[in-house]
Amino acid sequence: MTRFSFTIAATDGRARTGAIAMQRGTIRTPAFMPVGTAATVKAMRPADVEAAGADIILGNTYHLMLRPGAERVARLGGLHGMMGWSRPILTDSGGYQVMSLADLTKRSEEGVSFKSHLDGSRHLLSPERSMEIQRLLGSDIVMAFDELVPTTSTKEVQAAAMERSMRWAKRSRAAFDAGEEHAAGAALFGIQQGALDEQLRGASAQALIDIGFDGYAVGGLAVGEGQDAMFACLDYAPSQLPVDKPRYLMGVGKPDDIVGAVERGIDMFDCVLPTRSGRTGQAFTRDGPINIRNARFNEDQGPLDPACPCPVCRTWSRAYLHHLVRAGEILGAMLMTEHNIWFYETLMADLRAAIGEQRLAGFAASFRDRYRAGQGETR
Amino acid sequence: MTRFSFTIAATDGRARTGAIAMQRGTIRTPAFMPVGTAATVKAMRPADVEAAGADIILGNTYHLMLRPGAERVARLGGLHGMMGWSRPILTDSGGYQVMSLADLTKRSEEGVSFKSHLDGSRHLLSPERSMEIQRLLGSDIVMAFDELVPTTSTKEVQAAAMERSMRWAKRSRAAFDAGEEHAAGAALFGIQQGALDEQLRGASAQALIDIGFDGYAVGGLAVGEGQDAMFACLDYAPSQLPVDKPRYLMGVGKPDDIVGAVERGIDMFDCVLPTRSGRTGQAFTRDGPINIRNARFNEDQGPLDPACPCPVCRTWSRAYLHHLVRAGEILGAMLMTEHNIWFYETLMADLRAAIGEQRLAGFAASFRDRYRAGQGETR
Repeated sequence: MTRFSFTIAATDGRARTGAIAMQRGTIRTPAFMPVGTAATVKAMRPADVEAAGADIILGNTYHLMLRPGAERVARLGGLHGMMGWSRPILTDSGGYQVMSLADLTKRSEEGVSFKSHLDGSRHLLSPERSMEIQRLLGSDIVMAFDELVPTTSTKEVQAAAMERSMRWAKRSRAAFDAGEEHAAGAALFGIQQGALDEQLRGASAQALIDIGFDGYAVGGLAVGEGQDAMFACLDYAPSQLPVDKPRYLMGVGKPDDIVGAVERGIDMFDCVLPTRSGRTGQAFTRDGPINIRNARFNEDQGPLDPACPCPVCRTWSRAYLHHLVRAGEILGAMLMTEHNIWFYETLMADLRAAIGEQRLAGFAASFRDRYRAGQGETR
Repeated sequence: MTRFSFTIAATDGRARTGAIAMQRGTIRTPAFMPVGTAATVKAMRPADVEAAGADIILGNTYHLMLRPGAERVARLGGLHGMMGWSRPILTDSGGYQVMSLADLTKRSEEGVSFKSHLDGSRHLLSPERSMEIQRLLGSDIVMAFDELVPTTSTKEVQAAAMERSMRWAKRSRAAFDAGEEHAAGAALFGIQQGALDEQLRGASAQALIDIGFDGYAVGGLAVGEGQDAMFACLDYAPSQLPVDKPRYLMGVGKPDDIVGAVERGIDMFDCVLPTRSGRTGQAFTRDGPINIRNARFNEDQGPLDPACPCPVCRTWSRAYLHHLVRAGEILGAMLMTEHNIWFYETLMADLRAAIGEQRLAGFAASFRDRYRAGQGETR
């Protein structure tokens, strides 16, 4: 069986649609990966995540290394066996989260040492340890370990972080390859850094290409720079990366962020937005997001989104979901999350179809117009 | 179609197995009714409640009249339409909960006035208003409105409460019958009171029989008197009620409570235990309850209960559930609840089969021995 192959079936402008073939299954691109932080896509059964159209989910190295622990996950059959998900899993490197969530972090050329926010225990994350953890988790797509600095840092600081990330990418590659049995079935992605600087992004891309990866992520975006700045960066960053490999925009995003990024040549996405929003009463609809707690929904017998094919919209009314969410019922979080994941996965299917039929510009414009007009109305 | 008929297919000692036929479906007895307090069996989809084997669920008048409100439920298609459950629903009268949960209750011959714990609004529950609310909810089995006093009250207080409950039962009957359209498809149950006093229970039963009901509940038990005292009461209370009508033991109970009550002639049960326990990490097993948070389960790859046919036990390990519950994940509450409901419904199916084959005594003894031995081991 093929370890990893990326086939582009059609292009439309800079956008592409195709498929990544891996041993545990095929990932249709552009793809959205629901986030399963702690070995669960929150409030959803794996079978329902699959039914929504997800070909791959994401697991978080930082959370899993602390609880239940990577070695324990390995003894329990890896992430797939433990959580009952048989399709591919991408794991992040822990780099982003250790720097945003952990206590008392100390960075050095070796890596990042930190204190667990759960029990105060000390840990080290380095390229080598990150590769080991992702191997223990049984990850299908492993991310290189990188360093992040705020986008507001000076160019000097950005350049230094990017250069260290490239040295860490090389160490990640070596450590990944050393785990021969795992490497024979898994893929390794490098992460482009360089903030909003085209020259730094170009140098980072070249360094990654020199090392060689199965896919390339655009890192360091969606951290508060705003959609205009992000799109400006995506006007050049993807083209600096190999055309024949998947491009993954990490941590993005809102539905219209995804549409604009697909138009700019991105193939893969992940974001906590559909799951987290589902737990706080926000539903995504083709007419923009709505907050189901709003009193105007208390006797609204329509579905969350009349155009949505999901089991929630086929069965329950806005009024019932309003009641469940107001009453703090777990079923409210379950159903809102399921709808939101369907919304995202259906959007990806629509984007793939539009690219396949060379009508992406029209689809994107009409999606955006309706989504943004609705937002204005419902906020 | 038949409005309400109860057929006894087989008896074994005082125990009976059979079926209640109603317009929305057949209820196999002995039956366990999962509790759907606020128009949801907490953390479960209706289809999964049905798949577990439940023929009927229970809704709470007190909670629903306050949120979302009985008139609103009626406008949203009744409980069935709103929550997507097409089989029978039994609603309680609100009597028990208004006296245990509400603020500033004032009792009189008219009924109970109280302040909502949600928004401070004042409400009245009376036999007439309780019947109206249960009609607005679209209840299939309506419970008469009754008065409860602590089991530790004097016999004089108990007798007075029982006698008032019987006057309220008569008013409930009249108000139920006045809602002709609803009464043509629904059933009304009376509730026997009289605490732990055989003479009071007998007088209560006779008063109810004189009024005439479709079924009869044994009320006022499982309120702290202990299993021995409850069973002592169940040694005479069911036989005071008509043999050809269903007998419902309200709010019971633990698995071995149910087994003992079935042996004493009870046909219907409801209890929050399987759902509430599921949200706090307790799983029921044939070897007694276990708390999945216990560290000894952290690498236990077996199912919650090796003999359980439920989807949770077929898919996930104790170790994974331990992780989910420890991490506060919603999926943990979902899966633990689903297993517990399956445990209860499977127990009812086993009891029905044992009665049908005249081997209840053996089944009950062996269930009890194993369940209690296991409890000792795992606590």
